[in-house]
Amino acid sequence: MDSATRENIYLAAKKWILEAGKQIRENIDKPIEVGSKTNPNDLVTSMDKNTEKYFLEKIKTNYPNHFLLSEEGFGDVLHTLDGIVWIIDPIDGTMNFVQQKRNFAISIGIYHDGIGEIGLIYNVMEDVLYHAKRGEGAYKDEYKLPPLNTNMVLEESVIGLNHLWLCENKLVDEKYMQKLIKTARGSRTYGSAALELAFVAEGILEGYLTMGLSPWDFAAGMILIEEVGGITTNIDGGSIDMLQRNSVFAGNPTVHKQIITNFLSKGRK
Amino acid sequence: MDSATRENIYLAAKKWILEAGKQIRENIDKPIEVGSKTNPNDLVTSMDKNTEKYFLEKIKTNYPNHFLLSEEGFGDVLHTLDGIVWIIDPIDGTMNFVQQKRNFAISIGIYHDGIGEIGLIYNVMEDVLYHAKRGEGAYKDEYKLPPLNTNMVLEESVIGLNHLWLCENKLVDEKYMQKLIKTARGSRTYGSAALELAFVAEGILEGYLTMGLSPWDFAAGMILIEEVGGITTNIDGGSIDMLQRNSVFAGNPTVHKQIITNFLSKGRK
Repeated sequence: MDSATRENIYLAAKKWILEAGKQIRENIDKPIEVGSKTNPNDLVTSMDKNTEKYFLEKIKTNYPNHFLLSEEGFGDVLHTLDGIVWIIDPIDGTMNFVQQKRNFAISIGIYHDGIGEIGLIYNVMEDVLYHAKRGEGAYKDEYKLPPLNTNMVLEESVIGLNHLWLCENKLVDEKYMQKLIKTARGSRTYGSAALELAFVAEGILEGYLTMGLSPWDFAAGMILIEEVGGITTNIDGGSIDMLQRNSVFAGNPTVHKQIITNFLSKGRK
Repeated sequence: MDSATRENIYLAAKKWILEAGKQIRENIDKPIEVGSKTNPNDLVTSMDKNTEKYFLEKIKTNYPNHFLLSEEGFGDVLHTLDGIVWIIDPIDGTMNFVQQKRNFAISIGIYHDGIGEIGLIYNVMEDVLYHAKRGEGAYKDEYKLPPLNTNMVLEESVIGLNHLWLCENKLVDEKYMQKLIKTARGSRTYGSAALELAFVAEGILEGYLTMGLSPWDFAAGMILIEEVGGITTNIDGGSIDMLQRNSVFAGNPTVHKQIITNFLSKGRK
C-alpha cells in the first residue's frame, strides 16, 4: 500500500471511529438491551450491532472493494486476507460496557494482503485514541509513543492477564503461571483486550496474555505494538493466524522472551 | 460530630485534596525518585512524602487538636481513635503512580471517636472525586451514587482481587478462590485499593478482596461503601480494626454473604 492510499484510508477510519465513539457516549445512559452469544457471560448488546453496521455502511459506500471482518457477523465471510480488509471489533470489552459503562474500546485494524497497515484503538469514555500507521510510529492522541525499553525485566514488570490463567486450564499448568505472578512486580486485569494491547504499546504493561482471541480483538493492537518494537505471538512464541482464534501473548521483547522461556514453554500442556 | 462541624471539616478536606491532586498532576512528568520500603516492590516516592507533609501542615495549622494517621510516617503515633483523626494515604497505588502515571488516588477518611464521618477518594489523573459524609450519601463528583442492588448474585458479578489469591497463600486454600473466579462473571485487578473500594461503592465491582491493608488504605472507602448499603469486613466476616493491618473484603451485601459462605469460610486456613 502506498503512503497516499494509507493516509486517505487512515483519515476516513479516524473520522468514523471518533464519530462512532461519540454516538456511544451520547447513548451510554440509555437502557441497554443485552443478549448473550454462546454462553450467558459472553454478552452482546444492540450497541455492538449498531456500531458494526455503522462501519459496514461507511466502508461499503466509500470503499466498495474493501472487505470487512468483524465480530457481530455483518461483515464478509473471508478465507484469505487478500486485498484490503478492515478487521473491526465495534465494542471490545462488552462486560465492562454493560456493567461499568467505561473501560471499553472500538478496535480497527486495516490489513493489505495480510500486512497490517493501520491500527486504531479508541478508549470511548476517556476519549483517547491510540493510532498507528505501518512504519510511521504509534501515537496516543498527539503523543508519539517511545520505543519499548529493552532493558526491562520481568521482576520490574506489570503483566496483564485474566485470573483464569491461575486456575486449572487446558493450555498451561497453572503452577507455572502462579510462579510468573510471584516473579513479576505486579499484575493487572482490565477486561478489554484491545485496551490491554494498547497499554503494552504504551509501555504501562510489559506483557498481556490471553487464552483465546479472535482477529478483531488483536488486529489493531498488533500494529501499534509492532511500531514500538514490541512482539505479538501465540503463547508458544509462534505466529498469529489472522483468520482464526489464537492464544495471544504481546509484550516488551525482553520480557516476552523471559516469560516464554521460563514459564510458558515449561508449563505448556 | 454535629453536622456543622462535619461540613466545615469536609469543605477543608475537599479543598486540600483537590489542591494536592493538582500539584501531583502538574509534576507527574518530572523524573520520579523512587525508594523502596520493606521490599523492592513496595515502592515509595518523594511525591508520596511531599503530599503527606502538605496534609500534615494544613491539618496541624487549621485543626491543631486533630490527629493524623498516615502511611509515610509524618503523622501521629496513635493507640486509639479518640478525638478527630484524619487517616490519609497520600498516594494509594504507588506502583501505578510510578509505572503508569495514572490509576492512583489520594484517600482521606476522617473519624470521630472511631466513627467514620467523612470519606474522600480522589482519582488524581482522571480528576474524579468520590466523597461521602455519614448519613448523607456517597457521591462521584456531583452524582449521588444509588444504593447497591441487593438482588445481585455472584454469577453476574465482577470481583476485584489480586492474582496472588489464586496462588498458594497463608489465608485461604487457593482452590476455593479458583472456584470463586470460575463462578463470578468476571474479575478485575486495578492496583489501587482506594479506587477499588470506590468502585464497589459505585457498583461497578460487586466485591473487592485484599489480603493485607493498613487503615489509610481503607478508611475512606469504608465510609463510601457504608453510605450505599455495602459491607466491609475482614475475610472472616468480622469487624475491621482501624488501627491495624487487616484482610479486607468489601462488597455488595448479597454477594458478600454468598462469597463468605460458599468460598472464604470453606477455604480458610
